[in-house]
Order: sequence, then structure tokens, then C-alpha cells
Amino acid sequence: MTTIALLSKSYDMSHLVAPIQRAAPEFTVVMHGEPGAASAEVAACWDPPPGALAKMPNLRLIQSIAAGVDNILCDPTLPALPVCRVVDPQHARGMSEFVTWGVLHFHRQLDLVLRNQARGHWFRPEQVHPARYTVGVMGLGEIGSRVALDLLHHGFSVRGWARSARELPGVTVFEGADGFAPFLAGTDVLVCLLPLTGETRGILDATTFGQLKPGAKLIHVGRGEHLAVSDLLAALESGQLGGAVVDVFPVEPLPADDPLWRAPNLIVTPHMASVASARTIGEQVAHNARRLAAGEPLSNVVDVKRGY
Amino acid sequence: MTTIALLSKSYDMSHLVAPIQRAAPEFTVVMHGEPGAASAEVAACWDPPPGALAKMPNLRLIQSIAAGVDNILCDPTLPALPVCRVVDPQHARGMSEFVTWGVLHFHRQLDLVLRNQARGHWFRPEQVHPARYTVGVMGLGEIGSRVALDLLHHGFSVRGWARSARELPGVTVFEGADGFAPFLAGTDVLVCLLPLTGETRGILDATTFGQLKPGAKLIHVGRGEHLAVSDLLAALESGQLGGAVVDVFPVEPLPADDPLWRAPNLIVTPHMASVASARTIGEQVAHNARRLAAGEPLSNVVDVKRGY
Repeated sequence: MTTIALLSKSYDMSHLVAPIQRAAPEFTVVMHGEPGAASAEVAACWDPPPGALAKMPNLRLIQSIAAGVDNILCDPTLPALPVCRVVDPQHARGMSEFVTWGVLHFHRQLDLVLRNQARGHWFRPEQVHPARYTVGVMGLGEIGSRVALDLLHHGFSVRGWARSARELPGVTVFEGADGFAPFLAGTDVLVCLLPLTGETRGILDATTFGQLKPGAKLIHVGRGEHLAVSDLLAALESGQLGGAVVDVFPVEPLPADDPLWRAPNLIVTPHMASVASARTIGEQVAHNARRLAAGEPLSNVVDVKRGY
Repeated sequence: MTTIALLSKSYDMSHLVAPIQRAAPEFTVVMHGEPGAASAEVAACWDPPPGALAKMPNLRLIQSIAAGVDNILCDPTLPALPVCRVVDPQHARGMSEFVTWGVLHFHRQLDLVLRNQARGHWFRPEQVHPARYTVGVMGLGEIGSRVALDLLHHGFSVRGWARSARELPGVTVFEGADGFAPFLAGTDVLVCLLPLTGETRGILDATTFGQLKPGAKLIHVGRGEHLAVSDLLAALESGQLGGAVVDVFPVEPLPADDPLWRAPNLIVTPHMASVASARTIGEQVAHNARRLAAGEPLSNVVDVKRGY
């Protein structure tokens, strides 16, 4: 009989035991450290303790409970086993809601309007046609593509940047390192939806911000490690970035005394852009555990070398 | 030769002379009070001085420069002439952008998140599937229908309330006075897009708010006179309304010392939800002036008795 063990060093996964157990009643579901966990065949993980997976002799599947797997792949002792992730269509929808909110917030200048309200100042901002407002989406995977298409529906001019060329109707796609500067140059609001890899770590830095139009906006819903925090603060102070919504941070929760909470023109949100539902996580973990037990091909297998 | 006169007692229309003149180079375009204005055949109006239209002996067309005509019809001396309005498809789009922003702001609890940011507090709000979040749209004309359909695209549960029955695919439509209470009872966020008429004046009052779920939200983008301001303040204070975005006010600009600027959980916006572009206004005024001169049927004629 298959056992599924839940492992995280930073996130309380106990609320996921019941949804996984409900979706996989024929299997045993335990938390890391509980009896039977050490001999589990399946590890359901978010940020697992480094070295812990290597110590599980019967392990045959490493199943992320999220879309991103950087928090798993960073373990230098990671066993050479299949790594799978959760691909939740509702997750892309939630991300799109959040990004759409942020783009409209900046496009219609609600940031300015809220600042004006604080001092009782009535000023109607210019209404720019969305076709003259360019959203640049970094990362055109499942989620980035959905976000780009939803923004197109609202009439925005949408461009995307991806590692390799792809077709997305209505979206101007820039490719690879050579495409990055021209992609940035025409962007009014930059949306980061990249996976975290060696190539994308720290990509949101002073060099990148400096290639945007002065006063451009940032919506960062990728990973905390994409962002050079001191460069963000400097770009907001100088006005090179006219505003930002940042949802992910190198350390979460963001400490109460972190200067980011009060940086000018910065909206700090608590890693909320989209969270896969416990039910979906349970179903997808159970699905792959069942396929593993039956010797069938796994779903949503990550390219470990590529990193997503 | 036709003359078009611009009349408003509260709004500086001088920036519209050039766009109207560009669209109608064969006609004379003048401001109220300038030579020739008194004998104009066409009055392009927003909130015209009461009695002024009745004093124009050659007047044959009263053309609003906006979608709403309440500010014209309220003149008791209004001559019995055709009243037309501007119907700008871009206007509906702008309104939909603004309402979508407001609905997402409340649905994803960005109001709570912004308050938490002010005190450095990290709290991830619950993510509710949009199908379990009901937006109730009051008014299903050109603009309300567009707003309702755009919200449907985002997956929200959308209901509408209209004076008479109509079909709008995917939208549950409630009709007339009898339909109002059941419409309100199931609504999480109420959007007012009604025209201002004798029947709708003051409709956003304590009785209406009291029929919503406790903590429901309001997005008011109709007319200032729909709103009983003291009832709004009381509903926000008591929590019966959990939040509101109000874009229109009985007196505009809202005076700097008005208590609304600082009411709890209220976002005050400066009548910005959507403004028809000067170019569109110019084109539509010119279009109807030309049809009048040619003896052709006018476009976007208002039912003066109904009020919209």
C-alpha cells in the first residue's frame, strides 16, 4: 500500500492531510515525522527540509503542492526521481484576477486617486484607451498565457517575453535574451510570472527597471528571489518605477518592520495572487499517487534540468 | 447655415468647441452668450442654465454631450423638442474597466489588504471562487449590459435589475418594483448604473442597503442624486455596508471638507468611471446636427417621458 508523506520546513501543511486523504482513501497520508512517513513512496512537498527527501529509501515520486518547484529543486541532495507539480486551471484564473486588478489600478490611475483622497483633493485623471496602454508579461506558461489573453479581452496592448518563441494570438511575443531590452522598452506595466530558475533569479533589478519607460509600473507575482529588493526601493524613490504591486518576497511573511511596507507608491500584498485550493491539491496528489501505483505515466512532470 | 451653441451652468465646455468644429466644419460653433448663440438651431448641453433653452427661438435639437440627460430634463421650461444623447461604445468600455476594478478590489479583499499594509500586518484573505460571488447590476442599458457581460467573462455570478424584463445570456434578470428585494437579497456587491429619473432618485438609501447581506459592498457610478449620503455614512459606520466605491456626488467637485472623503471603508473617486472622449462628443453632435439640417431621423433620441 502506498504512503503519502507531507513535507515542509516553512509552511504548515497539516490542513492538506484531510483533502489528500479524501481524494485517495486507499492510501495512507501522514505528516513528515509521523510513523510511516520515512518509508513513504510519495512526498507531497512545499519547501521540504534539505536532505529529507534523500533519506526516504522507498521514495518514487516528489509531488509539489504548487505550480512552482524551485523550493524543491534547490535541495542539492535531491534524489533523481520524477518531480511533478500542481497545474490548477483555477490557479491561473485567480492569478489573472489579481493581475487584472493591478493593471486596471494603474491604468485608470486609482493609485493617484487614493493618494488624492487622503488629502481631500478632487482630480480626474486622464482616461487612456487601453489599446494605448501596453502590458508586458514575463513568462508565457499556463498562467502567463491566461493572464495575457484576459488582458487582451479588456483591450490592452499585450506583449510577452518567453525563453523560446511561441504563438499567442494577439500577443506580441519577444524571445530570449536578445528580445528582453526591446520587450521592456515599450512596456507601461511589467508583470512578472516567470518560474524561478538560475537564469531568472534577480532578474527584477536596476538594469531591468532602467530599460522601462520612466514611471512604468511593476506587478510582481513570480517568486521573491526574482526581485532585487534594494533596486526596487531605489527605483520607486527615484520615480523610474511609478508604482508597484509586489506579492512575493524572499522572506515570508514579510517582517512587520520591513521598509517595504512603507515604500513610496508600493502596494505590498501577502502572497495572495493565487493559491490552489486544498481540494485541487488533494485531487492532483491522489491522481499521481494512483498513477504511480498503477505504473502509468505521471501528470505534470517537471523538466528538472530546465527548472519548470 | 446651422449654428451649434454650447450651454452649461456648471461645466466649462470650452474645450469641446474645437472638436465639434472639426467634426462639423460646415456649421458655426459658439459658446452660450457669444454672438449668434441665441439664434442657434442646435444646443449641445450639460446641465444647461434653467430657462436658457426656452429663450432660443430657432432651437430645433437639444443634444446632450453625455449618456445621461437628467441634467437637461430637470428644466421645467424645457421646450418640446427632440433630446438626444451621446452613446459612445468606448464609454461603456471605460465604465466596465472601472466597475471590474472595483469588483475585483472587493472580491479579492484588496480593501482589507491595503488597510493591513498600513500597519505592517501580513494576512492572506480567503480566495473565493468568482462563481460564488454575486454582482448585482442596477440598470441594464447599453452600459449596464456591457458591464454585466464583462463580469461574466471573469466568472462572477451576475444578476441584473431593470425596469422591464430583458434577455441577457448568463445574467439573472430581476424586473421592476417586485423584483428589487429578491435582487438585493442575493447580492454581494451592488453596482448602480441606473439613469436618474423620478423613480430612481434617492434609491440608494437605508431601505435598500438594509436588504443587502450584512457587509455587502457598493459601487456607485450612476448619479449623485441616486444616493442618500447620510444613509450611506450610517451603513458604512454600522458595517451593513462593508465597503463602497462612490464616483458621483450631489455636488461636484466634492468639497475638501466633506466628511465623505474620510468615511470608513469608502473610496471616493472624482466622477472618473468613464468620460466620453471629446472627439466622440464632437462627432456625435456633428452627426445629429447634420441629420437635422438634412431632415433625416436623429440618432440616440431620448424618451423624454421615461427619462432616458
